[in-house]
Amino acid sequence: MELLKETIAKIDSLDEKKMDEAQARLDSLTKPPGSLGKLEEIAIKLAGITEDLFAKVDQKVHVVMAGDHGVVEEGVSTVPQAVTTQMVYNFLNEGAAVNALANQVGAEVTIVDIGVASEIESEKLVVKKVKPGTNNLAKGPAMTKQEAIASIEAGIEVVQDLIDNGANLIGTGEMGIGNTTPSSAILTIMTDLSLDETVGYGTGINDEQLKKKKEIIKEALEVNQPQEDDALDILAKVGGLEIGGIAGVMLGATANQTPVMIDGLISGAAALIAQKLEPQVTNYLIPSHKSVEPGHIRMYELLGLEPMLDMDMRLGEGTGAVLGMNLVEAATRIINDMATLEEAEVEANKAG
Amino acid sequence: MELLKETIAKIDSLDEKKMDEAQARLDSLTKPPGSLGKLEEIAIKLAGITEDLFAKVDQKVHVVMAGDHGVVEEGVSTVPQAVTTQMVYNFLNEGAAVNALANQVGAEVTIVDIGVASEIESEKLVVKKVKPGTNNLAKGPAMTKQEAIASIEAGIEVVQDLIDNGANLIGTGEMGIGNTTPSSAILTIMTDLSLDETVGYGTGINDEQLKKKKEIIKEALEVNQPQEDDALDILAKVGGLEIGGIAGVMLGATANQTPVMIDGLISGAAALIAQKLEPQVTNYLIPSHKSVEPGHIRMYELLGLEPMLDMDMRLGEGTGAVLGMNLVEAATRIINDMATLEEAEVEANKAG
Repeated sequence: MELLKETIAKIDSLDEKKMDEAQARLDSLTKPPGSLGKLEEIAIKLAGITEDLFAKVDQKVHVVMAGDHGVVEEGVSTVPQAVTTQMVYNFLNEGAAVNALANQVGAEVTIVDIGVASEIESEKLVVKKVKPGTNNLAKGPAMTKQEAIASIEAGIEVVQDLIDNGANLIGTGEMGIGNTTPSSAILTIMTDLSLDETVGYGTGINDEQLKKKKEIIKEALEVNQPQEDDALDILAKVGGLEIGGIAGVMLGATANQTPVMIDGLISGAAALIAQKLEPQVTNYLIPSHKSVEPGHIRMYELLGLEPMLDMDMRLGEGTGAVLGMNLVEAATRIINDMATLEEAEVEANKAG
Repeated sequence: MELLKETIAKIDSLDEKKMDEAQARLDSLTKPPGSLGKLEEIAIKLAGITEDLFAKVDQKVHVVMAGDHGVVEEGVSTVPQAVTTQMVYNFLNEGAAVNALANQVGAEVTIVDIGVASEIESEKLVVKKVKPGTNNLAKGPAMTKQEAIASIEAGIEVVQDLIDNGANLIGTGEMGIGNTTPSSAILTIMTDLSLDETVGYGTGINDEQLKKKKEIIKEALEVNQPQEDDALDILAKVGGLEIGGIAGVMLGATANQTPVMIDGLISGAAALIAQKLEPQVTNYLIPSHKSVEPGHIRMYELLGLEPMLDMDMRLGEGTGAVLGMNLVEAATRIINDMATLEEAEVEANKAG
């Protein structure tokens, strides 16, 4: 608990002065003011986060947190649990979608075992296993509060290490068969939304299985009675180890004034946990895509963020976050590389 | 007219067999089928366009067509016409937004003077000037039908040269003060939409100026009576030289089985012209962003395409198209670089 407390204590508000300077710089460039929309918003946000008007994101690292879920025994996913482990090996062998996409944007990929059911042998794997998968949240708490804290602190440690080694943009993603179930549960507790609005098909269940999934989540909420205002209680009772891990990555990046990308439903659930622990975290989060999961856009609304990409994606792994890194880099190129109206001898601040 | 006819005659349908093969390949990869959404659609489209399952887009060229507009004398823009020329110099000096963004994605930028009012001196500029700006379309035709054809053929020549030199992904963008006016006019003619639905603030006029802009477009349609089913008549009477040029780039790229990116309202208007000349063109077009211009999403609907980026952008230059190139490259990375379920020993086709 000490590391979590220290990390939250280090979190500061954005540097408003630098943001004003970034706004002024953007308005001096050869384009109509505001005409680059969200790219300009990102450039301003980065200035506020890093206290550097000309921040770069030339050392991108994407973190994939992998963990298993006891609730899969209820049949919430059509995919066998063993696939979590198989996909971790696939990540380590650079064969997965997130590897291909990370290569495109020049991001390194760090794979963390925070709670996979099996033992995985690899020097490339970061092992921070809190426990070998959560308990079945339909029958009782997914984990203890101590384990929930440990998962967050594992994420803080992972991201601290990456930032100490130079990372200046962090992606978040996950692997964990069954993990849309806890993610939808977290969203449901934190809102007045119905299960129809918070629960989706995940990687591809059918209508009957969807009905079952909603029943399981309803049962989990009744059995566990998570306290709406207590993020650690929610995470422990109906969360997941990789959700805690990602929340930790977000908190740790924020404490280190480093921007961090949101991905899909699971990453969004982690952001809600992190936000409840320290609301300022959302200032350091950068949205990426809107997934096909119905609850995802609701999460963005709660976070006060708007997605940039609409790709009809539902894969996970942080594939959306990695695609979004190109947009963050694009924003840095704008404020770093464009000519001012004065330099280019373009009239007024009206070019375009 | 000969080059335009020959180009259209060369246009073929997509290779359905290669698209089926691409679909099968994508379904064999370590992810749930279809879970990468529009990235998978692009990979399939590229296979159909290029007849190559493993197409690459490693030689990206972005074309910026620059032209002036007689209608600016009506006050449809707050920006002086001289800014078209000033911005062309800015492009050539690599100081504009599109240069910064093209560098991020590794695209070369080709600037074409297809109808700038002034004479621009630069070895780097491709000069295909049809005339030094259009006539005021509120008073009569923007240009003759011969000039409209010449503008399209100029675009065909430009893109042929680029493709002959190895380009395998083409971006389209423009510079031309006043050019949202002809673009909205083209959309209005081609649909039953009201001017409230097709006309927007452009680079930043106020409400009174917007009202005036709608009146000018109404006047232009009444004075010119463009024939709804005659793309060349529409382009000549209420179009623009850079709109014709971009339509030519799209037709030329299509005839050479090369994918081509759509940008914002002006590029969208060009796509509508190209589509009317040869409906198959839309199969070779790749959508990028949805601009804040209200008519833009309507254009996508007419083209049967869906935007991928929602960035609140309204700059032009092809800035959205260039951002979108990252997504096309991402799609090629997926189909080229991912492991199959068999290779990775992942169960069923249900990974994720």
